[in-house]
Amino acid sequence: MDYESIFEQAIAALKNEKRYRVFTELGRHAGDFPRATRFLDDGTTQDITIWCSNDYLGMGQHPDVLKAIKDATDQFGAGAGGTRNISGNTRLICELERELADLHGKESALVFTSGFVSNDATLSTLGKLLPGCVILSDELNHASMIDGVRHSGCEKRIFRHNDVQDLEDKLKTIDPSRPKVIAFESVYSMDGDISPIKEFCDLADKYNAMTYLDEVHAVGLYGPCGGGVAEREGLMHRIDIIEGTLGKAFGVVGGFITASKNIVDAIRSYASGFIFTTTLSPVMSAGALASVRHLKSSQVERDQHQERAATLKSLLTEAGLPVLPSVTHIVPLMVYDAELCKQASDMLLDDYGLYIQPINYPTVARGQERLRITPSPFHDDAMMAELVSALKNVWSRLDLRQAA
Amino acid sequence: MDYESIFEQAIAALKNEKRYRVFTELGRHAGDFPRATRFLDDGTTQDITIWCSNDYLGMGQHPDVLKAIKDATDQFGAGAGGTRNISGNTRLICELERELADLHGKESALVFTSGFVSNDATLSTLGKLLPGCVILSDELNHASMIDGVRHSGCEKRIFRHNDVQDLEDKLKTIDPSRPKVIAFESVYSMDGDISPIKEFCDLADKYNAMTYLDEVHAVGLYGPCGGGVAEREGLMHRIDIIEGTLGKAFGVVGGFITASKNIVDAIRSYASGFIFTTTLSPVMSAGALASVRHLKSSQVERDQHQERAATLKSLLTEAGLPVLPSVTHIVPLMVYDAELCKQASDMLLDDYGLYIQPINYPTVARGQERLRITPSPFHDDAMMAELVSALKNVWSRLDLRQAA
Repeated sequence: MDYESIFEQAIAALKNEKRYRVFTELGRHAGDFPRATRFLDDGTTQDITIWCSNDYLGMGQHPDVLKAIKDATDQFGAGAGGTRNISGNTRLICELERELADLHGKESALVFTSGFVSNDATLSTLGKLLPGCVILSDELNHASMIDGVRHSGCEKRIFRHNDVQDLEDKLKTIDPSRPKVIAFESVYSMDGDISPIKEFCDLADKYNAMTYLDEVHAVGLYGPCGGGVAEREGLMHRIDIIEGTLGKAFGVVGGFITASKNIVDAIRSYASGFIFTTTLSPVMSAGALASVRHLKSSQVERDQHQERAATLKSLLTEAGLPVLPSVTHIVPLMVYDAELCKQASDMLLDDYGLYIQPINYPTVARGQERLRITPSPFHDDAMMAELVSALKNVWSRLDLRQAA
Repeated sequence: MDYESIFEQAIAALKNEKRYRVFTELGRHAGDFPRATRFLDDGTTQDITIWCSNDYLGMGQHPDVLKAIKDATDQFGAGAGGTRNISGNTRLICELERELADLHGKESALVFTSGFVSNDATLSTLGKLLPGCVILSDELNHASMIDGVRHSGCEKRIFRHNDVQDLEDKLKTIDPSRPKVIAFESVYSMDGDISPIKEFCDLADKYNAMTYLDEVHAVGLYGPCGGGVAEREGLMHRIDIIEGTLGKAFGVVGGFITASKNIVDAIRSYASGFIFTTTLSPVMSAGALASVRHLKSSQVERDQHQERAATLKSLLTEAGLPVLPSVTHIVPLMVYDAELCKQASDMLLDDYGLYIQPINYPTVARGQERLRITPSPFHDDAMMAELVSALKNVWSRLDLRQAA
């Protein structure tokens, strides 16, 4: 058995499909976001502008967040030193959970090491705690939700993306006595569309299902306190479990759920991926806490963010570039081909110092390859003009498809 | 369907079994480890000594580590801002990986958000990449390895703990043409025993199996550079994949694997739990890097650590307390009963200010409940005298079993 050759072949297969991923080595600049340094293999560096960060509001460089991190480092030290149960239950993570529960109007919250783990651990445990449960999952749900559903061992039904009728058709066929969970996202991060939360909640009421909403690309960004799309639409109380992240709009790292006291206590007590892992560092908890608190009371970042996204979409449309009609801050520019998408991205970075990672399969379906642009409040008019000009050049050089 | 009552019942079941976990809210004191503040529900605080931290060497308060964290915060900001593939591939995490590969004498390394995720993601992906694979797993492997094996979908064979003969008996029965992975730990964290690494490697050679070694409770602590037990025993080159953590002896947070370039590249390219998650913060990468570099060249912490553990084991033995004959830094004190274990722990904390979390099922088997003590270089003679005296009192007050 030649193990090495099996791994080599697995890598070769990705290369053949033009979806082998090469990571771009970066140093961000606190205080100068979205500028960054790119480190090249030959030892040289390049000054670049990041256009694909999920630090949507630049909170990763907010002075309150950085101060909280440094103060916590001096006061508490680097790591938590243990799991939540064994000496790692820091006061800061408890405060962070109280703040997150309040943000979503729920009794309790639970912080995980990442958004991925929060989805995987919660959905898988939920499925195990509810005997005979059926999970209904949107076909475009994130990989972490897919893993959670699979690991639950439950029967699953995949409904068409954001399709109320298809969801109802599936709910109808399930024995009313069985527990049911409807799992979906608010903002889908690759197209930037939003799910029909109210209609899904109505169906949940009608068919007595639980609702699980991933607000990972919405917390901090939507709603008067940054509680997400469900807050904006006055629907938080109708969602049983709201899941979110501390690593995107909040600019730090970690994931969480908020729900009733009993649900959170059950996940806390049964989820292997929560129990048997070192707690998020108090340093990161402090940074996240400062960020959540800031965005709870400050609307200015959200307003600027929406304005910047709308402006970029207009500019791209005017330039005849094939931007998807996203209703959110996400600006997908379609290329429709894996190899060309990679080439466009490489050209933008090498020749123009503009960094937008290509999004290829399996993150999006084959043929739906794109450049996913995420303008922040710190991407000013001059940067946008530079970007549009470079994109027009690249579109012309590679003869890419224009807007229809 | 009354969902709330199902969750309530799940919690009630744990309470009935006396294994409902109550987290102790703590603030550690950088510079004064193992002293800490306990925050009680009534709003008061208590000064305590932590005796159950996995920050084994107190590196979580090391000045180099804290300085690296604060410098990185000023320079790079709080979070990574994206996944490794999408704008989150910080220079610091790349440097950290090069350092970890070097630590274990491997071509490559890969950092994950936690040790749990590194085991789960790697083992599950390994199983999927090797068609027809059988994973042979020690019966006392950590929950994260069990999850990884389960999620791989592979056939699994559980061998008796550290039992070379039983492992060989199982290997013999497997079709030689099938890929095989032997998954085990070096230090088992609840008993403090060490696996027969050389003998397992010999079997791997004989039956052409891959070896996967979890050194989570050994990295930083054993071997001339802190490479773990396999380094100490000159066996690193015989292990295909060495997995470790940055959250215990290194005092920060995160997990990793080191292996050949092809293995690491395949895991990097296929593991969902690696691909679709925000990168470890550059702040944490900086702290971990400083810690790994320090412990690579400094032996003093390891020597003190072993001395302190040996001293505590002697003191407990002299006092007639039922300490397990651990061959490592872990000092398990047996109680053999879930409720008494919790009572002893509560009494130590409330009445003596000494914090040792009870270890109950499912972390250990029922009837094997214990206090797991982890003395560090910062637990001095006076603290040990105080601990032994308190334990004798508690053993007497609760009429617990003495040493046989």
